[in-house]
Amino acid sequence: MPGSFPYCYHPCMNLILLTKEDFIDGTARVRLEGRRLRHVLEVHRAAVGDELCVGLIGDRIGTGEVVLLNQSVLEMDVRFERAPPPALPVTLILCLPRPKVLKRVLRSASAMGVKRIILLNAFRVEKSFWGSPVLEPESLREQVVLGLEQSRDTILPEVLLRQLFKPFVEDELPDLIHNTLPLVAHPHSSFLCPRGVSQAVTLVTGPEGGFIPYELEMLVSLGFTPVQLGERVLNVETAVPALLARLF
Amino acid sequence: MPGSFPYCYHPCMNLILLTKEDFIDGTARVRLEGRRLRHVLEVHRAAVGDELCVGLIGDRIGTGEVVLLNQSVLEMDVRFERAPPPALPVTLILCLPRPKVLKRVLRSASAMGVKRIILLNAFRVEKSFWGSPVLEPESLREQVVLGLEQSRDTILPEVLLRQLFKPFVEDELPDLIHNTLPLVAHPHSSFLCPRGVSQAVTLVTGPEGGFIPYELEMLVSLGFTPVQLGERVLNVETAVPALLARLF
Repeated sequence: MPGSFPYCYHPCMNLILLTKEDFIDGTARVRLEGRRLRHVLEVHRAAVGDELCVGLIGDRIGTGEVVLLNQSVLEMDVRFERAPPPALPVTLILCLPRPKVLKRVLRSASAMGVKRIILLNAFRVEKSFWGSPVLEPESLREQVVLGLEQSRDTILPEVLLRQLFKPFVEDELPDLIHNTLPLVAHPHSSFLCPRGVSQAVTLVTGPEGGFIPYELEMLVSLGFTPVQLGERVLNVETAVPALLARLF
Repeated sequence: MPGSFPYCYHPCMNLILLTKEDFIDGTARVRLEGRRLRHVLEVHRAAVGDELCVGLIGDRIGTGEVVLLNQSVLEMDVRFERAPPPALPVTLILCLPRPKVLKRVLRSASAMGVKRIILLNAFRVEKSFWGSPVLEPESLREQVVLGLEQSRDTILPEVLLRQLFKPFVEDELPDLIHNTLPLVAHPHSSFLCPRGVSQAVTLVTGPEGGFIPYELEMLVSLGFTPVQLGERVLNVETAVPALLARLF
């Protein structure tokens, strides 16, 4: 089969994301332990001599040749050859979903190439969600890294938290939507989400119970168009991949 | 806002799915206990006099007026007014994913309107997945019901299990794909998944590690086109909503 990853055949489904700290000083050799080592042992079931798909965070993608592998360490000689896949030209603004759902949405949005995710409060967001440990920086980073590893990307999305709806919409959103198509997913809209758009998009999804009219009106008055995906009301973890796939 | 559910405002996100057994004999009154009662108490936080969105399984959608509600029983007077939303013209054939992922894919596919789902074996499907309790009929039904309740539908999808790849592909698949566009999701394809198709589709997704060449060749020789969603490799729970949203 023709493939865009001639050196990353199945069952190597993931890219091993590297940081500068993984390199043995002054060499092209990395030394890995922990989660990435276990993954290579248990999922890739690699052996010395195998080539695995690797990427340097924020940088290029390439190949790592396994030169040492045992239960406590993996060493690879790496070379980088090409750019990561293109990003989606979208800012995704999610009214904060429940923590379990948030984790999956962060992973799927990151895997699909979203590079800016804003977690926003709204009247119908449960206050307790804002106290979840999933919102700690290390946990947010973990989820988006899992997405990058899935889809073989190296560019970390930024994840911003905005706990006040009105100041965000009034003070930040007008600049954010400048030169973009501003859309708010709303199951009761009479407009279908457009397909295959050629411009950047700012996409807002509401909380589980939907926006209250005041919130929706604020967005509409800024220029947002409410759009839906058909008669069906989807939850956010299904709606986000569906909306992104339809838009781009 | 204009809405297709003038009697089902937020925060009533779900439809309460009823069966004939829920009716008090010879009346238009239903009596509910268990999961649906708890949902109405805890999520809808309904009270006597409220109207909730209801649907009769395999039949129409309408409104239930709460006439009795306490910690042990919910009674509603129901009337049915309209057809469920249209189904997606697709047969979705999933190489059996791991049980946790399967549950989510069943829910999202059901919510999006898929009415026939076939769970198929392939070389890289882990054998242990076939022993999962998620594959028991009651459990499969539970997941697709959750999807219908999410998206306000009443038509149960059928879920078929096929544990032998070759006999299924040779003996059943030729009839299944008749008069449909047969597509197999394959990240290494050079064809992008088509958008907004006007015909029925048979869509196959591979196992986590991908199809082996023999399997893919069998599908291609039947007429399947391998298609991808871009350079990125998505997992099945992200890929299924993305593919369906792009196709229809």
